[in-house]
Amino acid sequence: MKHSLLAAAAALTLTAPSAAQQAPAPAAEIPSPGEIAAAAPAKDWIAIPASDLLVMDLAPDVKGKPRRVVIQLMPAPFSQGWIGNIRKLAAAHWWDGTSVNRVQDNYVAQWGDATEKKALPDGLAVVPESNYLASGRAFPIKVVLRRQNRKDAYTGAAVPLLGWPIALDKGSAWPVHCYGMVGVGRNMSPDTGSGAELYTVIGHAPRHLDRNIALVGRVISGIEYLSSLPRGTGALGFYETEAERVPIASIRIATDLPSADQPKFEYLSTESDSFAKYADARANRRDPFFIKPAGGADICNIPVPVRAAK
Amino acid sequence: MKHSLLAAAAALTLTAPSAAQQAPAPAAEIPSPGEIAAAAPAKDWIAIPASDLLVMDLAPDVKGKPRRVVIQLMPAPFSQGWIGNIRKLAAAHWWDGTSVNRVQDNYVAQWGDATEKKALPDGLAVVPESNYLASGRAFPIKVVLRRQNRKDAYTGAAVPLLGWPIALDKGSAWPVHCYGMVGVGRNMSPDTGSGAELYTVIGHAPRHLDRNIALVGRVISGIEYLSSLPRGTGALGFYETEAERVPIASIRIATDLPSADQPKFEYLSTESDSFAKYADARANRRDPFFIKPAGGADICNIPVPVRAAK
Repeated sequence: MKHSLLAAAAALTLTAPSAAQQAPAPAAEIPSPGEIAAAAPAKDWIAIPASDLLVMDLAPDVKGKPRRVVIQLMPAPFSQGWIGNIRKLAAAHWWDGTSVNRVQDNYVAQWGDATEKKALPDGLAVVPESNYLASGRAFPIKVVLRRQNRKDAYTGAAVPLLGWPIALDKGSAWPVHCYGMVGVGRNMSPDTGSGAELYTVIGHAPRHLDRNIALVGRVISGIEYLSSLPRGTGALGFYETEAERVPIASIRIATDLPSADQPKFEYLSTESDSFAKYADARANRRDPFFIKPAGGADICNIPVPVRAAK
Repeated sequence: MKHSLLAAAAALTLTAPSAAQQAPAPAAEIPSPGEIAAAAPAKDWIAIPASDLLVMDLAPDVKGKPRRVVIQLMPAPFSQGWIGNIRKLAAAHWWDGTSVNRVQDNYVAQWGDATEKKALPDGLAVVPESNYLASGRAFPIKVVLRRQNRKDAYTGAAVPLLGWPIALDKGSAWPVHCYGMVGVGRNMSPDTGSGAELYTVIGHAPRHLDRNIALVGRVISGIEYLSSLPRGTGALGFYETEAERVPIASIRIATDLPSADQPKFEYLSTESDSFAKYADARANRRDPFFIKPAGGADICNIPVPVRAAK
C-alpha cells in the first residue's frame, strides 16, 4: 500500500495516540524510532505526577464528542512564577466559560478571556523577565552534550533534557518552542503576562519566541482539538465573531478531578539508554523506507515520547 | 491588547493572507519581517507563471463555501519527471472525484485515489531515484553562502534560493520539507511514486524526509483547507470511513482554467536586497515585542513571502 509505506516515515508526535500510529515493521527489519520507544523497558518510563497535569475540557463537538486537552506543566526551575499563577487560576475555575479565541495557521492556538475584562483572582504574581531564563547550573550539561551534541540553527546546542526540549548556551538553559509547547501570552512589557492567556504551537517551531515569551508546559494529549480548529479570519487568526470561539467548559489541575477522571501519562526518560537509541534513530533513519538518513535532527524533530499510563 | 501584541511576533507563513496578518507597527518603530517584505519595491516581486500553478478545488464546505488550494510547482532542475506526470494527471482530469484520505497531526495531509485501483493515464514516466537530487552546479552557491550562511541541523547549509528552501552540501542541492511543501507519495522502492498521490506538510518540518521523498512544489494559498481538517483516527491519520474523506472536485493547471478564474501570485525574489533584509530580520527580531533576538533562524523559519498579484 502506498499509503502505509509513505506513512512509515511518520514522525512520532507528543501525543500518546501517535505512538500507536507507528507502522509495524515486518520481522527482522530495523526498528523505527517509534518502535524503539515502544520497546523501552518499564523502568525507562517516568510517570507524570497528576499535580503537573492541567486538564482543559472544551465544549463537546457538534456530534457531542468530548474534547479533552491535557497539558504537562514544566518542573522547576522553569517558569514557576507563571505556573503558580496557572494553578491559582485553575483552582479559582477562572477559565470556565472562557474560550479559544485565536487559531493562526502554522503558528498558534490561543485561549483565555475574549473580552479581556474578566477580573483575575487575587494573589497572582507579577513575574519578572528574569524568570524567562533558568540557570543551566542545575543541568548535567557536559554529560548531555557529550552524548547528544548536535548543531542547532539558533544557539550553542539544543537537546532533550530531563524530559523537555532545552536549549543550552554559556551556562544557561531555556525551553524551546517546539510543536505543542504551551506559553504565556503577554503585552509589550515582558512583565505583563499573568498566565491567564495561554497559547500552544500548532506549526513549525517558532524558535524566535524562545527567551521572549515564557513557556510553561506542553500539550501531551488532544492537541488535535486545537490544531484542527478552523483558522480565524481576523488579523493574526483571531476569530471575528462569538459564534466562532470554542467554549472552554473547564480547566483543572488533574488532582482536583475525581480520581476516576484523572488522566495518567508517562514519558520516556531522556536520560535513558532507550532514549539515546530513539534519538539516534530519529537523526539517522535506518528503517527500510529511507534511502538517505539525514545524519542529524533538530531538537523539535526528537519529540519526547509520551504515552497513556495504566 | 495582549492579543495583538503576542501576535506581533507572528511568523509570516507561505500563504498570501498571512502577509496581511502582520501587525502594523506604530510610526517610527523598527519594522517586522512581514513589514519589510510588504514594503519591497515591485521590481523585487516575481510573478509566478500560471503554467506553474496547480489548482485544487475541494468540494465546498458544509456552509457551501468554496475551498481552493493553490500549489506552486517547482522549476527545473527539481523533480521534473514527477511534475511532468502531475501535468498529465491534471490534463486527464484524473484527480476529479478522488479525495483527501489522510490527515495526521503535526505531519502531513495526503490526497489521491482512496481505492488505489483507479487506472493511471498512459504515458506516465517512471522516475529514477537520481531525480530526488539535482546538481548544485546550477546554483550560485558561493554567492548565496557568503550572504546567507547559517547553521543547519541537517546538512552543510540550507538557504532560500531561487524562490525555494534549498539545502546545499558537497556540490549538490535539494529542496527541503518545510511547512506547506508538497511531495510525492511512494512505495518502499524509490521508483514507485507516480505523482498521483500527493501530500503536504502540516506540522514541524520533517527534514528526515529530505532526499527520501521527492518534493514537487508548495502550497501558496489555501493550506488551511487541509491543515484544519479533522485528523484521521486510523493508523497514520488515515480516515476510516468514506464519509470522512474530503472530495476533490477538480485539480487543474491554472492555464487550463478560464482566464477570469486563473489565480495570480508573486513571490519576493530570494536574490533581492529586500529579501536579504527580510531574512536578516527573521533571524534577528528587532521589532519592539522582542527582548532577545535569536541570532539565527532555520530555513523553514524564513519562508519565502508569497502574495496575491493584481
